[in-house]
Amino acid sequence: MTQNTHRLVFQPSGRQGRVAEGTTLLDAARQLGVDIDSICGGRQTCGKCKVIIESGQFPKYSIASSLDHITPMGEDEARYFAKHPSSLTNHQSSFVHYRLSCAACITGDVLVTVPPESARHRQVVRKDARDRLITIDPILRQMFVEVEPNTLGGRKGDWERLQEALSHEWGLEGLRIDIHALRQLTPALRAGKPAAPTGNPRVTVVVWDEREVVDVRPGFRDAMYGLAVDVGSTTIAAHLCDLHTGAVLATESVMNPQITFGEDLMSRVSYVMMHAEGLGKLHAVVIGALNELATRAVRRAGVNMDDVYEAVLVGNTVMHHILLGLDPTELGAAPFTLATHAPVDVKARDLGLRIHPAANVHLLALQAGHVGADNVGVLIAEAPDQQDEMMLVIDVGTNAEILLGNREGIWSCSSPTGPAFEGAQITHGQRAAPGAIERVRIDRATGRPRFKVIGNDLWSDEQPPERIKATGICGSGIIEAVAELFMAGILRPDGRFSEELGIGSGESATSTHSPRAAPGLRFNGRKAEYVLATADQTAFGREIVITQDDVRNIQLAKAALYAGCKLLMRRRGVERVDRVVLAGAFGSYIDPLHAMVLGMFPDCDLGRVVAVGNAAGDGARIALLNKARRAESAQAARRVNYIETAIDPSFQEEFVNAMHLPNRVDLFPHLRAIGVLPDEQNEPNEDARARRRRERRARNAAPSSQVASSEAQTSTL
Amino acid sequence: MTQNTHRLVFQPSGRQGRVAEGTTLLDAARQLGVDIDSICGGRQTCGKCKVIIESGQFPKYSIASSLDHITPMGEDEARYFAKHPSSLTNHQSSFVHYRLSCAACITGDVLVTVPPESARHRQVVRKDARDRLITIDPILRQMFVEVEPNTLGGRKGDWERLQEALSHEWGLEGLRIDIHALRQLTPALRAGKPAAPTGNPRVTVVVWDEREVVDVRPGFRDAMYGLAVDVGSTTIAAHLCDLHTGAVLATESVMNPQITFGEDLMSRVSYVMMHAEGLGKLHAVVIGALNELATRAVRRAGVNMDDVYEAVLVGNTVMHHILLGLDPTELGAAPFTLATHAPVDVKARDLGLRIHPAANVHLLALQAGHVGADNVGVLIAEAPDQQDEMMLVIDVGTNAEILLGNREGIWSCSSPTGPAFEGAQITHGQRAAPGAIERVRIDRATGRPRFKVIGNDLWSDEQPPERIKATGICGSGIIEAVAELFMAGILRPDGRFSEELGIGSGESATSTHSPRAAPGLRFNGRKAEYVLATADQTAFGREIVITQDDVRNIQLAKAALYAGCKLLMRRRGVERVDRVVLAGAFGSYIDPLHAMVLGMFPDCDLGRVVAVGNAAGDGARIALLNKARRAESAQAARRVNYIETAIDPSFQEEFVNAMHLPNRVDLFPHLRAIGVLPDEQNEPNEDARARRRRERRARNAAPSSQVASSEAQTSTL
Repeated sequence: MTQNTHRLVFQPSGRQGRVAEGTTLLDAARQLGVDIDSICGGRQTCGKCKVIIESGQFPKYSIASSLDHITPMGEDEARYFAKHPSSLTNHQSSFVHYRLSCAACITGDVLVTVPPESARHRQVVRKDARDRLITIDPILRQMFVEVEPNTLGGRKGDWERLQEALSHEWGLEGLRIDIHALRQLTPALRAGKPAAPTGNPRVTVVVWDEREVVDVRPGFRDAMYGLAVDVGSTTIAAHLCDLHTGAVLATESVMNPQITFGEDLMSRVSYVMMHAEGLGKLHAVVIGALNELATRAVRRAGVNMDDVYEAVLVGNTVMHHILLGLDPTELGAAPFTLATHAPVDVKARDLGLRIHPAANVHLLALQAGHVGADNVGVLIAEAPDQQDEMMLVIDVGTNAEILLGNREGIWSCSSPTGPAFEGAQITHGQRAAPGAIERVRIDRATGRPRFKVIGNDLWSDEQPPERIKATGICGSGIIEAVAELFMAGILRPDGRFSEELGIGSGESATSTHSPRAAPGLRFNGRKAEYVLATADQTAFGREIVITQDDVRNIQLAKAALYAGCKLLMRRRGVERVDRVVLAGAFGSYIDPLHAMVLGMFPDCDLGRVVAVGNAAGDGARIALLNKARRAESAQAARRVNYIETAIDPSFQEEFVNAMHLPNRVDLFPHLRAIGVLPDEQNEPNEDARARRRRERRARNAAPSSQVASSEAQTSTL
Repeated sequence: MTQNTHRLVFQPSGRQGRVAEGTTLLDAARQLGVDIDSICGGRQTCGKCKVIIESGQFPKYSIASSLDHITPMGEDEARYFAKHPSSLTNHQSSFVHYRLSCAACITGDVLVTVPPESARHRQVVRKDARDRLITIDPILRQMFVEVEPNTLGGRKGDWERLQEALSHEWGLEGLRIDIHALRQLTPALRAGKPAAPTGNPRVTVVVWDEREVVDVRPGFRDAMYGLAVDVGSTTIAAHLCDLHTGAVLATESVMNPQITFGEDLMSRVSYVMMHAEGLGKLHAVVIGALNELATRAVRRAGVNMDDVYEAVLVGNTVMHHILLGLDPTELGAAPFTLATHAPVDVKARDLGLRIHPAANVHLLALQAGHVGADNVGVLIAEAPDQQDEMMLVIDVGTNAEILLGNREGIWSCSSPTGPAFEGAQITHGQRAAPGAIERVRIDRATGRPRFKVIGNDLWSDEQPPERIKATGICGSGIIEAVAELFMAGILRPDGRFSEELGIGSGESATSTHSPRAAPGLRFNGRKAEYVLATADQTAFGREIVITQDDVRNIQLAKAALYAGCKLLMRRRGVERVDRVVLAGAFGSYIDPLHAMVLGMFPDCDLGRVVAVGNAAGDGARIALLNKARRAESAQAARRVNYIETAIDPSFQEEFVNAMHLPNRVDLFPHLRAIGVLPDEQNEPNEDARARRRRERRARNAAPSSQVASSEAQTSTL
């Protein structure tokens, strides 16, 4: 007797075939290679496998599907839907006919739709604004299993019988078990015994990497969360994610408490070198901060800390080492040796991280002494190695980490920008905090500034000065200020204040020294400075100025960044890039136009310069949610061609060439096209510009000694 | 041009062959398959590879060996021997010519002797008294390696370069590294840099199971120790072993502090069941005891705790579970389910054991709910599965674990002897401690006892009574007492005191009630008892007696033990055994003759009944020193045919049959041959014995009511 078979089509994949009568839809899906989720192993408990039975004629598939072609709903299944009515309303149509695919058996031809939430490898949109998907396939899986009870004279331990169940129901072999999970096992089996005297104990197991059981709990559970954390030198940001749906349930951030041991990385490395207990202290405070973040995140999301089974951490190399308790001393000096460049998995308890004690903490690979796991996070988040277009990815911090390339190869380097972009080494520089000037505009006709401070929605000229209370200039503010000064012609291409526009000390800022004198620019002995905020606009009753030194420091920083980009382009053999990606919080705050006018990175269509925010944190989230991409990231990190700027002779050359504000206007066709450069910059003829400058200088009666000294001062840079 | 080769012979193996001129002796040994040790990888540092160059004619090998056939000693080698003069005096002859085989190169034919201490797989004698060898091949290896330094622009981490060195020098691939070792790595490389500016850093690495690096230290080191611990319910004993030589450097023992939570295992399981924090407390106190033992052992041996890299623990199933923090509740009731029966490796730090933090702690496999890792220790120590003779191995404790078999198969069971053999449930029973009666002799003619107490070298009749200060009877004392009472005819085969020999209460013990009356035996109302120590011989001024109930309890215990042995013999299909091995401390104290007279185990040639002491601890030491035998033990544990006495109907039958003192004299031909059984026992004719008993009874005027009641009482047992 041949068995009856029926035709079965799964949407949206379109996979189809004939399966035997009486087969469950879940088994049929597996036979046809359709990917349906399940935690409970077909016990009509988890609801992850629910599908929609379609009714009607489907000529495209030559199938007539009917609800009658499926066995009717039994008690258990009806009980599931009664307990979970919300699971019926996920779809827009109220007429869709949901069934649990593990319960419904085939009695005729059927067309079945697998809703997105039932696909085992669901996808989530990574960023609302951009079309990036993460396929949910974390390194952890949760499995509901039924364990055979022991019998008198039987000699198999609980763990051995659990292994048999996991092998039988889930095909897992050669598992090991964490000691904490082993401790939970016996009580879980006792508590997981159903009321019926004949039932076998049922437990939910969490398996890491198909290798290690990290948790065993009685009965059915589907809570499984993970933390993706970007450990920055300044800020630590954590996302708590649902490992089933990929949803971010809570995002928390905190200042990195290591700051009290040193603002920048090198001072923290010094602290470790100078203090016997230094490493232990720095390690303890950052772990303390992670515990605080985790506590806040689970509280906000209303979940249990014990259900947080994994954490993925990214950070620069120094943060990475300190997190693991590794001596970072060698990172402070050439040859910048890493303790390890490989990805690391370590038990949360071995770090003192108080999530589930058997949880693993994963640290992404490192690229080189200066290019850390955060940049590997950027690499997997932005995936330039999977694009055709030539992409330049810049993550600006104290060092800028730069990636350049496409699927044919990736080059990377770290460029020593210094902390100027973060507001350090700037006379009135400060961190991005309320009161900091973050936006600056300078009128090209009058030279007058206006600005915006963080925490105040109005521009400075839209409100009474005493309401502004500016406290300083943050990174984005100083970049805009320097770029605007340049565009207004107040700064010359070599970075010096245009002495023909300035006024001497003691003269009123509003008095005009020449027909085109800039109101805020003044020369005070050797010092040239531009008044950005007047005394009545600041919180401390004194002016906020931008000095010639400030400009020089920004020039040095931008030249380092630009030189790094150019070095990579030279190595890669390309003249221009198709896309510039600004990663990191800093990248989100700076205006691409101003950054390009300043010459922070090579010319590009401004519409293709994008800020992606915390790409490193995104990379951590991807590694948390998708094990394949996590594994790829370690390989990708090794494939990157790293260039050590410190020993590359062409870096120094590029650096010197990049000191000028947009140094060669022919290199910036896009800027030139939109006409934002000052007039003289739009003339490529250097001789003509020099001539005009000499003429102006003769026209204006600037004190020659001051000019000379100003020139002498800046030429030493 | 063909290369010159020379003839080379290695003693004592006799391996020989031709090798190229200029080859080091170490390389030549490897080419010829001769096993020479080395830690330093041929750097003339460790001295493990030293050999003896023989000089003269060796016709057996057709070789003329000369000291001139070896390159002369260089500076480094001379420095080694200057620093280690003692290494030259290990051999008896003072004329032997030692060389480091990694330094000496061949220039002609040579005969080389490899001294035992230079063999990589050396052997140590396990017990002085018996010819048992352990081949030293622990799961840990110590390796001295030279690591390439990092270069500027090089991107390999310290760990990756160490892996390259371990692969290149030692052929190890696919290693992982413990987080603690990773933390030590960078400082070790820094400190391991030689003074010479060109030298590469050198470190000593400890590798576990060719899989995991657990330690990295600067420079050359050869300190590597391990702990083998037998965790008994009463006593914990630890051996600190040198993992290079196998030597036991220190042995320490301590009372198991869990005793305060319950004397026997089941009361400790109950404590866990009744108290929420019970498991945690029992776990903490036993770990505390292990830490104390480890501290005492390293102090006594003068070594560092940080050089203790491994611990092997054995114990019964309840001890095993509590050590690991596993819930032992299920072991307290049928079906006696284990959390796991597999061997367990767990990090010392995860148990709170304060040896090297990356050390692994290994627990041997378990056989069944009642047969623990201690019995697996016994199994690998006594190795009945590798013998031809039929061996019975008995480990007596509260439960007796019994192994029976030979290389054709091993059967095992656990027999519920109860605590009587440990002195519990005995009127004046006590643990084996100073003051306890441990030896008893009863004169067969007079019925008078004499005895010895622990801590006193004289017998009771060799000293004034007031010097004796007996405090009670320990396990071996009660066994000897009952056996002696039986041999003196004072106890009848059914275990009742022979009423025709006793006296009534109030009569003097020295008055004779019948021609053969035993001086210490009296009947007091319902109670029959034998006075072992008079009031003036005890520490507390009252008699120490053996009551009818005491005898009954010993009978129950010995019947359980005997029944277990017989059950295994029945299953194995053998009538007699070739050898009886008494394991455990208890086995060392009891006299085999008395134990056999009591009928604790089946008849055997008394010359082939041996006490082996702490075989479980020996097994732990073997597993510590030899990785192959450790691995075999887990398989052997599974291969054992375990019989659950609780559900085996023939066990009950055997048990009832075994209640009599040597129950059927025909089963004890060896005892009969040496004539130790009382006269009536040497007559197999039951009818004749019964007749004689009736005659005696009639002859003596024992109060008939008392006899009747005594019979009624005992028949309920």
